[in-house]
Amino acid sequence: MAFSERVSRLKSSLIREILAAAQRPEVMSFAGGLPAEVMLPKVQWQDMPLAMGQYGMSEGEPQLREALAAQARQLGVPCEASQVLVVSGSQQTLDLTAKLYIDKGTQIMLEAPTYLAALQIFQLFGADCLTVPLQADGPDLVQMRARLEQHRPAFIYLIPTFQNPSAVRYSEAKRDAVAALLDEFGVTLIEDEPYRELTFDGGSATPIVGRLEKASWIYTGTVSKTLLPGLRVGYLIASPDLFPHLLRLKQSADLHTNRVGQWQAMQWIGSEQYQAHLDQLRSFYRQRRDEFQGALLTHFADLADWQVPQGGLFFWLSLKQPLDTRTLLKSALEHDVTFMPGEPFFADPERNPGHLRLNFSHIDPARLDEGLKRLATVIRQAQAAQAA
Amino acid sequence: MAFSERVSRLKSSLIREILAAAQRPEVMSFAGGLPAEVMLPKVQWQDMPLAMGQYGMSEGEPQLREALAAQARQLGVPCEASQVLVVSGSQQTLDLTAKLYIDKGTQIMLEAPTYLAALQIFQLFGADCLTVPLQADGPDLVQMRARLEQHRPAFIYLIPTFQNPSAVRYSEAKRDAVAALLDEFGVTLIEDEPYRELTFDGGSATPIVGRLEKASWIYTGTVSKTLLPGLRVGYLIASPDLFPHLLRLKQSADLHTNRVGQWQAMQWIGSEQYQAHLDQLRSFYRQRRDEFQGALLTHFADLADWQVPQGGLFFWLSLKQPLDTRTLLKSALEHDVTFMPGEPFFADPERNPGHLRLNFSHIDPARLDEGLKRLATVIRQAQAAQAA
Repeated sequence: MAFSERVSRLKSSLIREILAAAQRPEVMSFAGGLPAEVMLPKVQWQDMPLAMGQYGMSEGEPQLREALAAQARQLGVPCEASQVLVVSGSQQTLDLTAKLYIDKGTQIMLEAPTYLAALQIFQLFGADCLTVPLQADGPDLVQMRARLEQHRPAFIYLIPTFQNPSAVRYSEAKRDAVAALLDEFGVTLIEDEPYRELTFDGGSATPIVGRLEKASWIYTGTVSKTLLPGLRVGYLIASPDLFPHLLRLKQSADLHTNRVGQWQAMQWIGSEQYQAHLDQLRSFYRQRRDEFQGALLTHFADLADWQVPQGGLFFWLSLKQPLDTRTLLKSALEHDVTFMPGEPFFADPERNPGHLRLNFSHIDPARLDEGLKRLATVIRQAQAAQAA
Repeated sequence: MAFSERVSRLKSSLIREILAAAQRPEVMSFAGGLPAEVMLPKVQWQDMPLAMGQYGMSEGEPQLREALAAQARQLGVPCEASQVLVVSGSQQTLDLTAKLYIDKGTQIMLEAPTYLAALQIFQLFGADCLTVPLQADGPDLVQMRARLEQHRPAFIYLIPTFQNPSAVRYSEAKRDAVAALLDEFGVTLIEDEPYRELTFDGGSATPIVGRLEKASWIYTGTVSKTLLPGLRVGYLIASPDLFPHLLRLKQSADLHTNRVGQWQAMQWIGSEQYQAHLDQLRSFYRQRRDEFQGALLTHFADLADWQVPQGGLFFWLSLKQPLDTRTLLKSALEHDVTFMPGEPFFADPERNPGHLRLNFSHIDPARLDEGLKRLATVIRQAQAAQAA
């Protein structure tokens, strides 16, 4: 069996295995990043033209591209519809980015921690990962400058708004500083913003790509967190120098994104109906966040430290007595509870033990308290066993 | 600008450019492979469960996987639903295959000619392409054996039923012989069958993968040619040794295929309604094929040789006086007619001039005669200029 060298770096996906285990209805899962079922909008299909069944353009539906460009311009991203590429979920942006930039040994820069599935696909293509630690208001700028002075990464991948997993939202000052650094060193920015609209304090900060003067960039978003993930409709907006390459890579990946989902997304993006839905979503998730915070204080106050997330879908806990949280999974599942260990969110997992990512959007509120109680018990037992 | 080495092999897509030119309504296009709009079935959406909007499994919808496995077993492919992976159009199977097998310089084996977009993505990943010439009933077995005795390709990619572009359908004897050769040399088979159901003489031959005894295999199909390409729903079925790798590559590419399209495909695959639709489709395209053959005899009898296709969507013409058909495109578009040059369907285009691929499914019958007349004129003018 002669597979590509790449396949030797294809890791068993922890997410897949945890989600598979979480299929059992009795399991209380804090693991995924799923929208709450009750907040999936009731969409209509009867007006969809039959022509949406025909092959479409690799770029995406023209009307959707216009709407996405208009939305991005409102956020201060200078762009035209010609820079918008509709993709099959923003995960595909990561695949196209990897193809565009990464050979074996190519240096790239990431936050520590960063989005697990991004790390996996960049490493699959052979990336050598440089990392910058996250602080409460964004990356450590001193370390970022130091890395950039020593290395020339092909790109930097950032999730500045309600980061997955840490829930960090970069401050305005750090956004400006990061943009200035990337311009200074000529490093391409990949800015991933799936959670922008899920803000609980009404706060917002515009994207970093709109603050760049010179550096190339790709901005990516999705309707998965705010509309329907099952549509698999995301998008990227790229600086004009990158767009033609990304378009050809998109075409070779899957010709074009499904038009049925694109048509549905078009009915929402930029509409009053969508704004009303987003308002409801923010209220709903804010309440779930508050309830989760209450239950955490009850069960985890002595076990872990955390920031209350101001947006997104996750709490990021740091254990006061760190241990490899991957070792907790088996015991947790025996207690019919599951979560996402923190280690795989780091390029060097062994050196970053003791974090847990807990999703608060999807758990049945009636089972929240019991679920966190059981998870705390699992951790206490493991720490006691470790101490013994 | 430091892109990956791969990007230096990213060719400008001739298909994209021709299709873009063909958007002008006055252009008579024989270039694409589009279904006729009038044969797109009127599908219903009102019964689709809201849950199809939620994230789904990377493998695909369980009910759809069962239906696809049952359909494949009827064709003699020994498989279970656990071997079925729903993909975002069968183009994605080519992307996953490239990722699974191809490093720079990896040898693979292809038909000459072969599907343009397959060639492009395999070459993008750095494949070194060995080729086997096609004859009227399938590949040249003497040359295939000779290549296999000298090389050990990572896989062989074949389109045995109404091949794109040549319309060749392998005979039963050649299918058996190819299977035996691949078993003997232990070469993995990638069998691509988008056109199987579009048979005009009622003839059929079962897939080659069902004839293998030992070799690994991937079989891929789609609903794009028989239902709605805009859904972007295809599938692959793989031997059990390959499936886990393909599943993880699928997850890293786009998490899962859109569930809306999967749900619609489920309403059709294996149903009586689908069989009735396929019967209508075959009759409709058979008539278009016959009309096209009539018009070809009028305008091309002295210019080219061809076989009458017994299925699929294309005529494959070989000019009696070969010239590089890519040089005809500009003049053809000036005459508001377009087609697909044959050269890009070969791994070594410069050594294979003089073929044209003409699509007969999509052209308005009222413009067929005028379109072929103009195309013949363009060719005659070019040949006259060449002779002068």
